Amino acid sequence: MSQPINRQVRLKSRPSGIPQAEHFEIVAAPVPELREGQVLVRNIYLSVDPAMRGWVNAAANYSEPVPIGAVMRSFATGRVVASRDPAYAPGDYVTGMFGWQDYAAVHAASIDRKIVERDLPLSTSLGVLGLNGVTAYFGLLEVGQPKAGETVVVSTASGAVGSCVGQIAKLVGCRTVGIAGGAEKVRLCRELFRYDEAIDYKAGDLDHALAAACPEGVDVYFDNTAGSITDAVMKRLRPHARVVICGTASISAWDPPPEGPRVERHLLVKRARMQGFVVLDYADRYHEALEALAGWIREGAIDYREEIVDGIEHAPGSIAALYRGENLGKRLVRIASESG
Amino acid sequence: MSQPINRQVRLKSRPSGIPQAEHFEIVAAPVPELREGQVLVRNIYLSVDPAMRGWVNAAANYSEPVPIGAVMRSFATGRVVASRDPAYAPGDYVTGMFGWQDYAAVHAASIDRKIVERDLPLSTSLGVLGLNGVTAYFGLLEVGQPKAGETVVVSTASGAVGSCVGQIAKLVGCRTVGIAGGAEKVRLCRELFRYDEAIDYKAGDLDHALAAACPEGVDVYFDNTAGSITDAVMKRLRPHARVVICGTASISAWDPPPEGPRVERHLLVKRARMQGFVVLDYADRYHEALEALAGWIREGAIDYREEIVDGIEHAPGSIAALYRGENLGKRLVRIASESG
Repeated sequence: MSQPINRQVRLKSRPSGIPQAEHFEIVAAPVPELREGQVLVRNIYLSVDPAMRGWVNAAANYSEPVPIGAVMRSFATGRVVASRDPAYAPGDYVTGMFGWQDYAAVHAASIDRKIVERDLPLSTSLGVLGLNGVTAYFGLLEVGQPKAGETVVVSTASGAVGSCVGQIAKLVGCRTVGIAGGAEKVRLCRELFRYDEAIDYKAGDLDHALAAACPEGVDVYFDNTAGSITDAVMKRLRPHARVVICGTASISAWDPPPEGPRVERHLLVKRARMQGFVVLDYADRYHEALEALAGWIREGAIDYREEIVDGIEHAPGSIAALYRGENLGKRLVRIASESG
Repeated sequence: MSQPINRQVRLKSRPSGIPQAEHFEIVAAPVPELREGQVLVRNIYLSVDPAMRGWVNAAANYSEPVPIGAVMRSFATGRVVASRDPAYAPGDYVTGMFGWQDYAAVHAASIDRKIVERDLPLSTSLGVLGLNGVTAYFGLLEVGQPKAGETVVVSTASGAVGSCVGQIAKLVGCRTVGIAGGAEKVRLCRELFRYDEAIDYKAGDLDHALAAACPEGVDVYFDNTAGSITDAVMKRLRPHARVVICGTASISAWDPPPEGPRVERHLLVKRARMQGFVVLDYADRYHEALEALAGWIREGAIDYREEIVDGIEHAPGSIAALYRGENLGKRLVRIASESG
């Protein structure tokens, strides 16, 4: 076969807020040569995640910003096409931080895992059986510590992480209340993701809707948005409530930080806890979450939804679309067929 | 002896923010009759605490607001003068929620404890050997969870709680940085309360001073103020930092809540935790804290400072004076001699 081209989505300029299509460029590069200990992965699915906004911003973060001119950092799932590491062989399906590109030459350390659940769709390895599901699992169970009978509120409740949080909370025996934007997402929350109540924050009086949906108050708030949704939920915390800060989707830029109602009094009076969460801190326990999630998916106890678009040309604008709330499920970009 | 008068400081009107002298009135009432199971306490020291602001405000709180016309709720220490409870006898020194008044007829349940550390000044039972010390102990050790070598920052660092926090942190092996208002308090922080560094937040550039005092960042922030001091500290949190929300002294009114820079991004990026703390939740473990504190005081490992004013007429204006930052130690009102 003739030497293929490696299309790469590279960061062209640094956005101050949410990265738009114009901050990227697609460049044709040679497929990298494999060095000893490396594995060549042909990417099939590229992931699009809210966290990618943080990865390209210059502000303080939990990882170094993607350099200008570099391939956009991202999770991806693909097939091993060549290997100079004995742990991997051509034909293995793997997932990891392979970037927005056709081919990645990576060391084994960059591979999160070999995908063993071949009875489940490969695409789930980037969503419900990937970092999204694992984020929901540890964020809710470890940081949120829900107990049966408690009320759990989730923002971006129909999203890739939120939908999983709501369903895990339900499995724990909690009452679940989802907050989402628009009638279609609210319908998904109720019909697909098993929420006891779902609120359309775009429909009007969120304070009133929350009071009606959470008459006893809120024990756990899994927060993917920050902003005015969070302000409304904070007013309804119960004593000893836990607020899991997993994302800040509603804030378009953090430099300078936007202002909002101070939270100290809520936290003090309710002896509540507000805690930031980055799933990477749980890397050595991913297998535990993946095993549980795979079991729940097979039992039909967890549903998920994906929106797959075909073609690498959809990648550059996909983060901005995510922040506009356009997708109705985990957003993936498919750039090759699964069978190769 | 002729029947004495029971002077009472009663709540006259409800303040929306910090209670001032004019929100109270001093009324002469009869000394209460003792009923079966009650103890009559002759108060000697009345406590003045920042938390009393919350007790008189109508807004949501961890306790019911003091009713208009009722004796102001407060901690006090006094001598038992009559008892119809076999557990207490005249001459016992006791501390508890006896209110701003000369005499309190209370059930044993309102008595926090009999004071057994008669080698230490009686007044300490309302400060370093009372709720202030216990607040410092559990707030720092249980919520803040400091580890040797970490940097602990304390706001109102020379106050009754803050000064104790700083010294306990030092005993744990932490580096301590105190934030206080004015040169005299900063001097106390350094010379009496053993802080490694002390910052006068009134002196100018707090951001710069914090950066210089905490070059590695902040692991534990014990927050008694909220407001702009907290905003400055939040910017310097280290990964996995803990913020103990113990008080909000710098905020004059919470209704409506004032705005400030949103904290979500700091918490997320640093995987930090911000948690409210009310010492009453630890009531069944006070003895553990008091034993430790008494030991440290006797060893000279914890110093304290008190400002005692004589006369119940000083009580009404004392909360406002506290919030103006006028006192240089635990503020107490002495209304009778210790020996009776």
